[in-house]
Amino acid sequence: MAINLKMPINEELLSIPGVKLATLSAGLKDKDRKDLMLMVFDDGSIVSGTFTQNKFCAAPVVVSKNHLKSTSAIKALIVNTGSANAGTGDRGMEDAESVCEALAVALKVTPNQVLPFSTGVIMTPLPAEKINKAIPDLVKGLDRNNWLGAAEAIMTTDTIPKAVSKNILIQNQKVTITGISKGSGMIHPNMATMLAFISTDANISLEMLQKLNKEITETTFNCISVDGDTSTNDSFMIVATNQSKHSRIVKEDNNYKVFKAAIFDIALELSQAIIRDGEGATKFITIEVLGGNNVDQCREVGMSIAKSPLVKTAFFASDPNLGRILAAIGNSNVKNLDITLIDLYINEILFATKGAIAKDFDEIKIQKEMKNSEIYVKINLNKENHRATVWTTDLSYEYVKINAEYRT
Amino acid sequence: MAINLKMPINEELLSIPGVKLATLSAGLKDKDRKDLMLMVFDDGSIVSGTFTQNKFCAAPVVVSKNHLKSTSAIKALIVNTGSANAGTGDRGMEDAESVCEALAVALKVTPNQVLPFSTGVIMTPLPAEKINKAIPDLVKGLDRNNWLGAAEAIMTTDTIPKAVSKNILIQNQKVTITGISKGSGMIHPNMATMLAFISTDANISLEMLQKLNKEITETTFNCISVDGDTSTNDSFMIVATNQSKHSRIVKEDNNYKVFKAAIFDIALELSQAIIRDGEGATKFITIEVLGGNNVDQCREVGMSIAKSPLVKTAFFASDPNLGRILAAIGNSNVKNLDITLIDLYINEILFATKGAIAKDFDEIKIQKEMKNSEIYVKINLNKENHRATVWTTDLSYEYVKINAEYRT
Repeated sequence: MAINLKMPINEELLSIPGVKLATLSAGLKDKDRKDLMLMVFDDGSIVSGTFTQNKFCAAPVVVSKNHLKSTSAIKALIVNTGSANAGTGDRGMEDAESVCEALAVALKVTPNQVLPFSTGVIMTPLPAEKINKAIPDLVKGLDRNNWLGAAEAIMTTDTIPKAVSKNILIQNQKVTITGISKGSGMIHPNMATMLAFISTDANISLEMLQKLNKEITETTFNCISVDGDTSTNDSFMIVATNQSKHSRIVKEDNNYKVFKAAIFDIALELSQAIIRDGEGATKFITIEVLGGNNVDQCREVGMSIAKSPLVKTAFFASDPNLGRILAAIGNSNVKNLDITLIDLYINEILFATKGAIAKDFDEIKIQKEMKNSEIYVKINLNKENHRATVWTTDLSYEYVKINAEYRT
Repeated sequence: MAINLKMPINEELLSIPGVKLATLSAGLKDKDRKDLMLMVFDDGSIVSGTFTQNKFCAAPVVVSKNHLKSTSAIKALIVNTGSANAGTGDRGMEDAESVCEALAVALKVTPNQVLPFSTGVIMTPLPAEKINKAIPDLVKGLDRNNWLGAAEAIMTTDTIPKAVSKNILIQNQKVTITGISKGSGMIHPNMATMLAFISTDANISLEMLQKLNKEITETTFNCISVDGDTSTNDSFMIVATNQSKHSRIVKEDNNYKVFKAAIFDIALELSQAIIRDGEGATKFITIEVLGGNNVDQCREVGMSIAKSPLVKTAFFASDPNLGRILAAIGNSNVKNLDITLIDLYINEILFATKGAIAKDFDEIKIQKEMKNSEIYVKINLNKENHRATVWTTDLSYEYVKINAEYRT
């Protein structure tokens, strides 16, 4: 696995006014590994979420959605690894609710003010008793400066923690944003076992935060794929504590644009970090599709390439067997595709034009480019002016190894 | 790779009255490997075909479709390996036509009476000159008893030839059917690099043969997946020489049903043989989905499981991490799925009921079943009475190896 692929860990993660964090090992998985993460918010904080579209969505996803509907005064979120609490039926729902209740008691709030998140093996019961027993100690450990620990505590097959911070100015007032994410396999978020949490002290209305969450998801977390499998637990949450001194963002004004751009940058970096740490990944592949009739068409073409095992193994081998990209495009479920218009590039070198091999196709040159650990594939559909970019990995022996041995 | 997975080669392939075959090595790939196959039909024979839905369909597919439209008097088909002649633009079309012309001259027919087929690397020009130079020798070698040779000549990453024969009686008259197929990777036929040719001396109208071809494809070749990639060259052809003495089949009578059942058996065996020889396959997995609102819904659920890399690696490892099957079902693109109704079985052992882990789930027992090289997964959607069955393989290190090294 190429170390240089991974997102470097930012050592200076910024604390967010109004947010405290705690982690510990409740022995859910390995004894010495952190497996619980708690995030607690000051009064006045708001939370927006985007969740998996998998029909078998996990019990904690159902519970979190219900709680978000029932109150805007969310006070805490708790994440466990080891069990995804998905495919666990009524017991799974009871277990998720019991964790919320135990945490509500410890924090002196109501259970619906708590959002539960789980990641790990599907169809394995949640060890709710172990978690609930650990909650008092977890609450004691709450601290403003614990973001790296939080990023570490939510890891499963991840090999590195994923976190990023940023300061921006809105009306000359400092606004801080810090986000963490996890995910490495079962990654094809439609809104993966992907979790991402971004916190900020920005002052924004819930309505605008929800709008922004949805918009950002479409062009970041919903544009990455490791293996085409959409997880049962994917969640992308944004928490705004509203403690920064600028005036509240309540419409799509310039302040909204500045804030959205900053959240987009963080979300993009966190989503790409998941691909860079993709199971068995040796390549980070950016696929940009231009010239489409609409954004959905472009994304569909990009995802059809990103999901093809044959394309992914060719990238693993640095084998310019690029006809596989043509086949993947032809295999995409889009209308109005005119293959006689399509131009294809690897790192800006044209290798096929008008849907057929380029006359000056130089296999040696292309192969050299494919040996890089970062590759840029560009597809021009040459129809209209829409575009989309998706990010993916190659498919290596290591991917098979990780997934054939995940539980052992 | 488990040898016992593969379809045993039937040593007694039956010749078909009205059909002659020839093969040779034209040096398209390895010098000593057969790479051309020619099939020639007596006057009065009819041919039906079902072709890939990949939008980048290969030049020979376009040419074969055009020729089938222009005449019902097809006299020959020719297959080369080494190049798929896909993504080759105008030159690809010219090359495919030139092979038809050269063969038409040698057989004293018109070029549109010839159907060309290609399989191999995409976006590699067809070596038409080499092929055309070999045609006279190829024609000299025509023989009625050359089916095994023909099955061998069309192999690419296949490890064994795939062929099957059957005699049936229609109106007490003997009717013989012999089919061959190839395919091992890029297999997810929507009507893969899959080719299948079935010949028979049955006496049937072109209209009824086309109808039967379409119906058979839906429940056989379109229900197999190795890797979810639909090839640019998939073709399933049926040739009827009409030389058997029974009266011509012109409607859906009992004779049609008997004939269709026999063709179905042959097509099913040939399509399953492709899965049994799937790239890197160590398991042959049958996925039956029952209780759906319609057949398409059932097939979609089955294919979502068949395409999931996480399910496939779990099968490779014999790891009863069966929550991955739930996630794959939830990830399928179907409407009206009620996950609280779904029951799931491995080799008839219930492991999840009403969408959640079964109370008596016995991991050791299930793991034992998963160690078999043939596995039967049953999903009951418990809605209505429709059903579909699909066939797939596991995902092994060997799959990655084969596809990372295909061209070297």
